[in-house]
Amino acid sequence: MTVLILTSDQDVTADMVVVHLNASGVPVVRLDPADLTGGVSLSGEYVHGAFRGHLRAAGRLVGMDGLRSVWVRRPGAAAAHAAAPSPWLTEESSQALYGMLRGTGARWMNHPDAARRARHKPWQLRLAQRSGLPVPATLITTLPQAARDFAERFPDLVVKPVSGAHPQEPPRAVPTSRVAPGTDFAAVAFGPTLLQRRIAKRADIRLTAVGERLLAARKETSPDADPDEVDVRFAASATPWTAAGVPQRIADGVRAYLREAELAYGAFDFAEDADGTWWFLECNQSGQFGFVEVDTGQPIARAIAGWLAGPAPERPGRTCDAGTAVP
Amino acid sequence: MTVLILTSDQDVTADMVVVHLNASGVPVVRLDPADLTGGVSLSGEYVHGAFRGHLRAAGRLVGMDGLRSVWVRRPGAAAAHAAAPSPWLTEESSQALYGMLRGTGARWMNHPDAARRARHKPWQLRLAQRSGLPVPATLITTLPQAARDFAERFPDLVVKPVSGAHPQEPPRAVPTSRVAPGTDFAAVAFGPTLLQRRIAKRADIRLTAVGERLLAARKETSPDADPDEVDVRFAASATPWTAAGVPQRIADGVRAYLREAELAYGAFDFAEDADGTWWFLECNQSGQFGFVEVDTGQPIARAIAGWLAGPAPERPGRTCDAGTAVP
Repeated sequence: MTVLILTSDQDVTADMVVVHLNASGVPVVRLDPADLTGGVSLSGEYVHGAFRGHLRAAGRLVGMDGLRSVWVRRPGAAAAHAAAPSPWLTEESSQALYGMLRGTGARWMNHPDAARRARHKPWQLRLAQRSGLPVPATLITTLPQAARDFAERFPDLVVKPVSGAHPQEPPRAVPTSRVAPGTDFAAVAFGPTLLQRRIAKRADIRLTAVGERLLAARKETSPDADPDEVDVRFAASATPWTAAGVPQRIADGVRAYLREAELAYGAFDFAEDADGTWWFLECNQSGQFGFVEVDTGQPIARAIAGWLAGPAPERPGRTCDAGTAVP
Repeated sequence: MTVLILTSDQDVTADMVVVHLNASGVPVVRLDPADLTGGVSLSGEYVHGAFRGHLRAAGRLVGMDGLRSVWVRRPGAAAAHAAAPSPWLTEESSQALYGMLRGTGARWMNHPDAARRARHKPWQLRLAQRSGLPVPATLITTLPQAARDFAERFPDLVVKPVSGAHPQEPPRAVPTSRVAPGTDFAAVAFGPTLLQRRIAKRADIRLTAVGERLLAARKETSPDADPDEVDVRFAASATPWTAAGVPQRIADGVRAYLREAELAYGAFDFAEDADGTWWFLECNQSGQFGFVEVDTGQPIARAIAGWLAGPAPERPGRTCDAGTAVP
C-alpha cells in the first residue's frame, strides 16, 4: 500500500517526511497536480458497478485502490504547468484527480472538504469555544455601532482579517494590528471586521497536532517588546522556539477540535497570558512545521510519516490489486 | 424559528416556495449575500464561550440561533453589489456570513460542504455505483490508449466534460456529444476526457428528491429523434414532462445516495432504455425544478417549503432568543 503525496517539487518540508517513509520502506508516490497532463497521467473506469483507477507519475504507476493515504501538502493548481493552461483545464483536471481520489478508501491528511471548511475563521472560533478552548472575546461585524459598543466593553483590541489571507497568488498574510484608542469604526460598514480582545501575552505557543500526537512549542515574549507588535509572524525575534508541555485542558480541547473538524493535521496558535492561560487564536490546517522542528528538535516530520504509513482502513468495494497494468 | 433563503432578487423559483411558507405562517428572511454590506448587515460576537449572531436585511432582524433552516438557492457572490467590490471583499464577506451560519444549528438545503463535494462527477459516479444505481460504463482518462481500448469494448460512446459546466460567469453548460466512429483520441493526452457508453434511450427521467420525498418526471424520446442528439437540455422538443412512478430499486438507490452525500435536495437525471432500466447520468444538487412543476403539476415547491419548515434540530449551546436586539 502506497502513500501519495500531493505537493510541488520545491517543497523541502515534504522531503523531510519522505526521508522517514523511505527509511521505513513504505512505498511513496509524490506528484504535483500542476504536472497534469504532462508528467502526470490518470485513468479510471467505472464498469459493472466497480471502479478501477490509476495514476502515473515519474514512470511510477499506482492503482488508486492501492493507496494507503493521501497527504495534501502544497499541491499546485491542477494542470497549471500544461502547455496551454486555462481555468477550464484546471477545473477539469482538478475534478478528475480529486474526484477519483475521493472515491478511494485512502486516509487523508487532510481531506479536501475538511481542509476547506477549516479555513473559516468564524467557524474556527465557534468550534474552539465548543471544544472548551479559551477564546478571546471577538466581534465580527458590519455595524459601526456594534463595534463601538464592543470597544467600550473591551478597550484593548486587535483587528485582523476575517478570512486569514489576502486572496492573491501566492496568498499574502495580513498582519494582526492593534486598534488605536478612540478609533471611530465608521469604516466597518464597508466590510466585515474582526475585532478581538488583545491578550497581553508572555509567550506565543505553536501546537502542532498530528493525529493524536500533540507537539507544543513556546516562544517567550521579550520583556521590552513593543505591545503594538502583536503578530508573531511579523515581529523580528532572536528568541528561539522551545518544546513545551501541553496542559491537559488544552490537549482535551485540541483533540475535540480535530475530531469535530475531521482534521488529521493542524497547527494551532495560542497566546499565553500572565496567568499561564493559552488563548486560542487560530488553527491552520496546512500550517508549516519545519521551523518548529528545526528550533525544538521535535520529531514532527517523523510523526507525519508515521501517520501516513499507518494501517489502511477497511475499504468497501475493492476490485483489483495495486499492480494491475494500465494500457 | 425562521427560514433563511439565500438567493438573488430575480429568482422566481424561490418565490414559488416563499408563497407556500407564507401560507403556512412560517417566518422567512430572504436575502442575497451580494447585498452585503449595503442592504444586508451582519454581526456576531464570541464572548465567554458563547456565540450570539444576527442578520439584518430589508429592515428585518433575525438572530442566528433563531434560524430553523437555510436554503442556499441561487445566492450571488458575497458583497458583489458593494460600491467598491473586490475579490478580497467577497472573500471576507463570504467567510463572515457562511462562517457564522455554519456555527448555528440550522438545517441546510444544501450544506455548502455537501454542495461543493456533490459537484465532483467522478465522485458522483462512484457513489451511484455504491448506492446500487445502474451506471453506464464510463472512462475518465488522459491516456489515449486507454480511450482506444475502451472504445473497442464500448463502440457507441458519448463524451462530456468531467466538471459539468464551463467555469465562466454565469456557468455555461457544455453539451454531451456522441463520439464519431473511428475517433483517434490522441487529444485525450491534453486534458482529462470523460467517455461514457451511450444509452439508447426511450425516455429522459428527471427525479427531484426533497428530503425523503421523490418526484419523478419522464419525457418520451420521439421515435424519429436524431440519435446524435443525446443531451435533453439542448434538444428542441414539444413533448412535455409527465409524472412517473419511481421503481423501488431506484428509490432505494437515490435515498442511499442522498444519505451518503448529505444532501437534502437533488435533481437526478436518468436515461431510460428499451428494457425500462433507468441509467444514472448525474445528480445536480442545485438543479432547477420549476419546469418540471409547470409541466407535471407535481408539488415540488410545496415539498421544499415543507422540508424547510420542518422541525428544528436540537441545537447545542443556544444562548439567546431570536428577538434579542442588535445595537
